[in-house]
Amino acid sequence: MPEAASATTATRATIGDSEFDRDTALTRRAPGVYDIDLSAGWTIISAVNGGYLLAVLGRALADALPHDDPFTISAHYLSASQPGPAVVRTDVVRTGRTLSTGQASLLQYDEQGREVERIRVLASYGDLDSLPDDVRTTAQPPAIPPMDHCFGPEDGPAPVDGSSAIADRLMLKLDPSTLGWALGRPSGKGEMRAWFGLADGRDPDPLSLLLAVDALPPTAFEIGISGWVPTVELTVHVRCRPAPGPLRVSITTRNLAGGFLEEDAEVWDSADRLVAQSRQLARVRLGA
Amino acid sequence: MPEAASATTATRATIGDSEFDRDTALTRRAPGVYDIDLSAGWTIISAVNGGYLLAVLGRALADALPHDDPFTISAHYLSASQPGPAVVRTDVVRTGRTLSTGQASLLQYDEQGREVERIRVLASYGDLDSLPDDVRTTAQPPAIPPMDHCFGPEDGPAPVDGSSAIADRLMLKLDPSTLGWALGRPSGKGEMRAWFGLADGRDPDPLSLLLAVDALPPTAFEIGISGWVPTVELTVHVRCRPAPGPLRVSITTRNLAGGFLEEDAEVWDSADRLVAQSRQLARVRLGA
Repeated sequence: MPEAASATTATRATIGDSEFDRDTALTRRAPGVYDIDLSAGWTIISAVNGGYLLAVLGRALADALPHDDPFTISAHYLSASQPGPAVVRTDVVRTGRTLSTGQASLLQYDEQGREVERIRVLASYGDLDSLPDDVRTTAQPPAIPPMDHCFGPEDGPAPVDGSSAIADRLMLKLDPSTLGWALGRPSGKGEMRAWFGLADGRDPDPLSLLLAVDALPPTAFEIGISGWVPTVELTVHVRCRPAPGPLRVSITTRNLAGGFLEEDAEVWDSADRLVAQSRQLARVRLGA
Repeated sequence: MPEAASATTATRATIGDSEFDRDTALTRRAPGVYDIDLSAGWTIISAVNGGYLLAVLGRALADALPHDDPFTISAHYLSASQPGPAVVRTDVVRTGRTLSTGQASLLQYDEQGREVERIRVLASYGDLDSLPDDVRTTAQPPAIPPMDHCFGPEDGPAPVDGSSAIADRLMLKLDPSTLGWALGRPSGKGEMRAWFGLADGRDPDPLSLLLAVDALPPTAFEIGISGWVPTVELTVHVRCRPAPGPLRVSITTRNLAGGFLEEDAEVWDSADRLVAQSRQLARVRLGA
């Protein structure tokens, strides 16, 4: 990692001054109501990435609530978001000394100018820096080869048809043992592992972890299923403020049944700490 | 299992006519607004069990939404519920052909008669019976000894001080290898496994799965932590309608850090299908 990190040092963006920060910035229109222009820079084909959208909602709630960090945030995805204007409405459910809970909705407009809800979120926020330093864990960092043995979209022809603007914003290096799908030989195991960072070198923070958990190719590809795997619900627990440097993300699917599957993500930081856990329920749209 | 099942056949309750059904029954006061008297029969010491409360909310949403089954339901616990009167307010967020999404709040009253919110829930419902029968899973049922080699509260002195009314409502037989805490010798592993059913013999259904995921002793006991482990947030995915007969529940905690831990539960039915997955974020209140 020291090599990879030093290679980008010259142009490195910082937390607060980066593509991710500019594209998640909201304008407060009224108490609890925010405007944003959803960036086309975080799309996969034509859909806006669900992790980017969750980070937008997470940022609105960080402003609306007395606490800054999303300890647990649950999002139900209602309809596909498009790049362009959107409004976020937040509601403070409860405030406490250690935790506060809020709700938020992301809405866009249809052709008649009517609001259409895209995502609804419920979240409990706290202050990660106030937590005691005790850690008792049996979790182990994922076994993933060094970054220069892993592969990104820039290392070969785009494995997914259509443009994926998000690929230009991410530093994503996939473990070759979870890349069989890109060569037409899916492993059959529902696993996906990668080194993850922001392309402009911005270090991770709790909000960018909300992006990290939903940025890898779907595990369904390695199960041998191509097509669209839209998220129904995604819950993220942020467990620790991440240390600077690249993250490792490991995603596992154990159960595909009745056209639905779960994706469990773990995110580890450069200090070998488990910084986020997430689970999503997604739908398999065969042949879509 | 055939032996255990036949022993209770004579007095077996049925889905729709059981303690669980009577204690989760709601009265519709107005469209989307329901009254209930929370039963003291599902308390642990003085707190009403979070899984029972989730089943109450889940039942209200099943009435309010056009679909019956909670595919994914996320609850944020705001304050401790007490036995007695409560109101559930539901809100239909979106209805679709396959999935519909709703929100619900459980409220009680303080001494001045003001409403106090206990739990807020966001959920997406569907129809489990309409799903295709495809299953591709790498998940394995938990290794748990036969039921007559497992132990319940009736097999020894109550391991937790205070009355736990819920123990009388459940058929809970814990795997002895996760019972070290009850003998003062916690294993240090964050695991808890049990056979689970309702004491009156009622078979499982999607709503009782919401109870099953939160009915075992906290995994923290096996990590060597006693005290209270209140749930901050609990998300349950119901993946399949459970077959009749006892369930196996396996709960795992991998990461205790900063005073918070996750509990991942899997519920398996008598047909060896993974019928529910859940994850909760809980707080460790040491010495409480």
